[in-house]
Amino acid sequence: MAKDKPTKLRARMPRGFADRGPGDLAPTRAMLETIRKVYELYGFEALETPFIEYTDALGKFLPDQDRPNEGVFSFQDDDEQWLSLRYDLTAPLARHVAENFDKLPKPFRSYRAGWVFRNEKPGPGRFRQFMQFDADTVGAPTVAADAEICMMMADTLDALGLAGKFVIKVNNRKVLDGVLEAIGLGGDENAGRRLTVLRAIDKFDKVGISGVRDLLGEGRWENPEAKSGDFTKGAGLDEGQIDTILLAFVVRPTPMENVPADAIGAKPFGKDTDGEPWFVRYSNAETIKGLRSSLPSYPLVQEGIRELEEIVLLTEAAGYTSQKICVDLSVVRGLEYYTGPVFEAELTFEVKDEKGRPVRFGSVGGGGRYDGLVGRFRGEAVPATGFSIGVSRLASALSYLKTDAKPEFGPVVVVVMDRDQTAHYMGLVATLRQAGIRAEMYLGNPKNLGNQFKYADRRNSPCVVIQGSDERNAGQVQIKDLIEGAKAAAAITDNAEWRSARPAQFACAEAELVEKVRELLDHHGVPHGAARG
Amino acid sequence: MAKDKPTKLRARMPRGFADRGPGDLAPTRAMLETIRKVYELYGFEALETPFIEYTDALGKFLPDQDRPNEGVFSFQDDDEQWLSLRYDLTAPLARHVAENFDKLPKPFRSYRAGWVFRNEKPGPGRFRQFMQFDADTVGAPTVAADAEICMMMADTLDALGLAGKFVIKVNNRKVLDGVLEAIGLGGDENAGRRLTVLRAIDKFDKVGISGVRDLLGEGRWENPEAKSGDFTKGAGLDEGQIDTILLAFVVRPTPMENVPADAIGAKPFGKDTDGEPWFVRYSNAETIKGLRSSLPSYPLVQEGIRELEEIVLLTEAAGYTSQKICVDLSVVRGLEYYTGPVFEAELTFEVKDEKGRPVRFGSVGGGGRYDGLVGRFRGEAVPATGFSIGVSRLASALSYLKTDAKPEFGPVVVVVMDRDQTAHYMGLVATLRQAGIRAEMYLGNPKNLGNQFKYADRRNSPCVVIQGSDERNAGQVQIKDLIEGAKAAAAITDNAEWRSARPAQFACAEAELVEKVRELLDHHGVPHGAARG
Repeated sequence: MAKDKPTKLRARMPRGFADRGPGDLAPTRAMLETIRKVYELYGFEALETPFIEYTDALGKFLPDQDRPNEGVFSFQDDDEQWLSLRYDLTAPLARHVAENFDKLPKPFRSYRAGWVFRNEKPGPGRFRQFMQFDADTVGAPTVAADAEICMMMADTLDALGLAGKFVIKVNNRKVLDGVLEAIGLGGDENAGRRLTVLRAIDKFDKVGISGVRDLLGEGRWENPEAKSGDFTKGAGLDEGQIDTILLAFVVRPTPMENVPADAIGAKPFGKDTDGEPWFVRYSNAETIKGLRSSLPSYPLVQEGIRELEEIVLLTEAAGYTSQKICVDLSVVRGLEYYTGPVFEAELTFEVKDEKGRPVRFGSVGGGGRYDGLVGRFRGEAVPATGFSIGVSRLASALSYLKTDAKPEFGPVVVVVMDRDQTAHYMGLVATLRQAGIRAEMYLGNPKNLGNQFKYADRRNSPCVVIQGSDERNAGQVQIKDLIEGAKAAAAITDNAEWRSARPAQFACAEAELVEKVRELLDHHGVPHGAARG
Repeated sequence: MAKDKPTKLRARMPRGFADRGPGDLAPTRAMLETIRKVYELYGFEALETPFIEYTDALGKFLPDQDRPNEGVFSFQDDDEQWLSLRYDLTAPLARHVAENFDKLPKPFRSYRAGWVFRNEKPGPGRFRQFMQFDADTVGAPTVAADAEICMMMADTLDALGLAGKFVIKVNNRKVLDGVLEAIGLGGDENAGRRLTVLRAIDKFDKVGISGVRDLLGEGRWENPEAKSGDFTKGAGLDEGQIDTILLAFVVRPTPMENVPADAIGAKPFGKDTDGEPWFVRYSNAETIKGLRSSLPSYPLVQEGIRELEEIVLLTEAAGYTSQKICVDLSVVRGLEYYTGPVFEAELTFEVKDEKGRPVRFGSVGGGGRYDGLVGRFRGEAVPATGFSIGVSRLASALSYLKTDAKPEFGPVVVVVMDRDQTAHYMGLVATLRQAGIRAEMYLGNPKNLGNQFKYADRRNSPCVVIQGSDERNAGQVQIKDLIEGAKAAAAITDNAEWRSARPAQFACAEAELVEKVRELLDHHGVPHGAARG
């Protein structure tokens, strides 16, 4: 301890940010690599844009339209221009494409993994910095590009070991917009209300049918029964308008509603907040048929249905059934800039919510067609479609499923018995490293040998290498097997047996160090690299 | 073109930022992976901290002490507290260690790769966002930790293929500080002047001896002869003080000075601004001997020399000669927080400067011991040492050396001859992808076939797959070999020979598509994945 204790700074992080250690980082790195390989296979190429953009280039497509100047971290440059941290990877892509339009091959197919920032109120699992992994095709007008993105997402989740545990849901903004026009919500003057309606539908999974009804009408209390908590203002629609929307997008009015799932070979698709299955997953052909018969004959609606039909045609021809890629009108995606097909990747397995109730894991990403975003810079529409994976959410989903996870082992630790032998101990470490074995010499104060073993335990080291003067004079080292030691400690009854089968500590010739440590690692299934030559 | 052209936003990036494409990203990713593997082998573990920290946690160790409120991007949180984008990875590590002190194993050995931000005037090759790759050992008081960091850096550069092309230079702040004390620059009241002196020495590579002399004295003009450009204020030392510093750190007063390099088996180490070799690289033993005889007998100086000697002992015992890790008193590292050994990784091969003159590539990273940085939060010193690689600079160095670089090939492109066959074309693409071959269908407007081929050229596609109605009816596809085609175009004289040896376009059965494309890729050495089953 210093004698004159100076005023201490408090070590703390701003709210909504987090440090991440090897337990998070190693699986996330492996996941990103898998995603990248699928995207590359599809012909997309890597792109990175900076974290900081001109605020106006991120522009009016802020995630939270209600607070146009909030939601992003902004600051002025020394020439007084406003800069912001990017809040997604789509707006910077639009800027990149517009800035390099003539140089780029078109369609321009790129992928980007990167951190984005939201200056919002943080909460549990809600961070102000998070990672997205996007892929976009810019300059492709046909829905073949949308269909391809859906198939790529399905392949990505398959490649991550999630086959059979997800569905890519597809809707079309043209259908949504057409129905809204049909009930008198067309035109620029209703843009805000349309967005409120979309967001209300989008909240179905969270608030159920009655919640959506409230959000389409006057509004909704955070705790509806007690009428307490935050109040969210609704879209102010009348009963007739609300019923049309609910029937079109939330409870679809087809004769198969409430038919037992088994009878038509489909599965219950979701559950209402009371836990009851609330509708049945139809085949895509049935869904399209249902849309044709139930939705208004507005041109925009019909164009939207035609596009959905083509996506179904293309994906099913490629072998992606309704179980994998399915039309689902409850998907709206809250962002204003979508102009055509919209997608969402939903994981269908159940996890426990904060109250211990089983809920579906839910969305791990989404996207859609945004033909206007690049055009803001060019004065002409540039067709574009893309998908964004929520990296942390997907990583968290994978960790739920990883039941055979082995602990990450730390390095082999060479303890320091005699300070004047440091060079020799470092030589032992170098020998291990040259054989591709993760190793280090204890670099703290070596006085207390107990601390050295405690350190090896905390690093989850597979073994410790010990050489005092006796061993050194005999040309030997002692190897203490910490994995075996832990097993032995855990199984006191069988102690004698364990020890006889494999001693937790043994001596070997210094020249055999690499060989013996390798044997030990192999015996316990601890991965180690090949010799580096 | 839209008829009512709306006001266009200008697509542009703020100054000092850059977009990066696959040509940058793929080699950088490979490089980072190599570095990571070496760090892991040494027992360091992954850590990531957020991009945003409380400004006070980054604290007084701003990179530019002269402008304490500048140099970083800062903004206020909604509770009025100041936040900043991190400007390096060391200050956030100190915060992390202090915040989690009791939970962490000690020593705490971690590595971090990440972007950092400097709100400074950008210039050529000088960005406001760049990446560092750091490794640090916190809680290790002995110079064995410093020696290990130097060896790890040497191993890292070896692993990157730079063996024989670099030197890790080591100095000790205690020697520097001791000499400054000896000439009357000790004490808190001279902290600012000491920093100015350190930075002056640090500029030797750029400004030569006379430039350093000016910076130690009154100051230096950007263009000294014309006395024009920016004027940098000097440390204001007198002639005696300046001579002591120059002799100690810049031109070392040993009898071997100016001995032809060949005569002592050493190499000219650097060149003065006039192009003459200015001193000779000594062996570490000679350097230590020279320091002992020429530097003042101040206790701090002697302690510093002893530490350097121990680093030499440990690194040479492990087989790292003076050619790889060498004591060099001209290394000072401009940051105020270093308290002991300081290191710099210098690439020794020559590249051309902006005027076409050969210069050494120079520094690609550095670091040192900073025993006070974590202590700011704890009221007690916490010994720590680390190294930071400048990722872009190192990547740029590697790209200079990569002479056998093959162009990155794009995906195989299936062109669209008949729009109503889209599903079938996508099926061909799916077949290629399932075989691990990067492929895509052309997704732009297919009307103009020329545009489709132009697209394949711009993506650097190895081949194009074509199927019109004739081929379809015959159960065939045409494969157009773009690599062969380019060769043929380049070698008009041998045209006939090329074409007879390997036609640039050929037909094959649709069922043989994968096999034929694989043959073509193998023939040209284009890598492609194994079948995914």
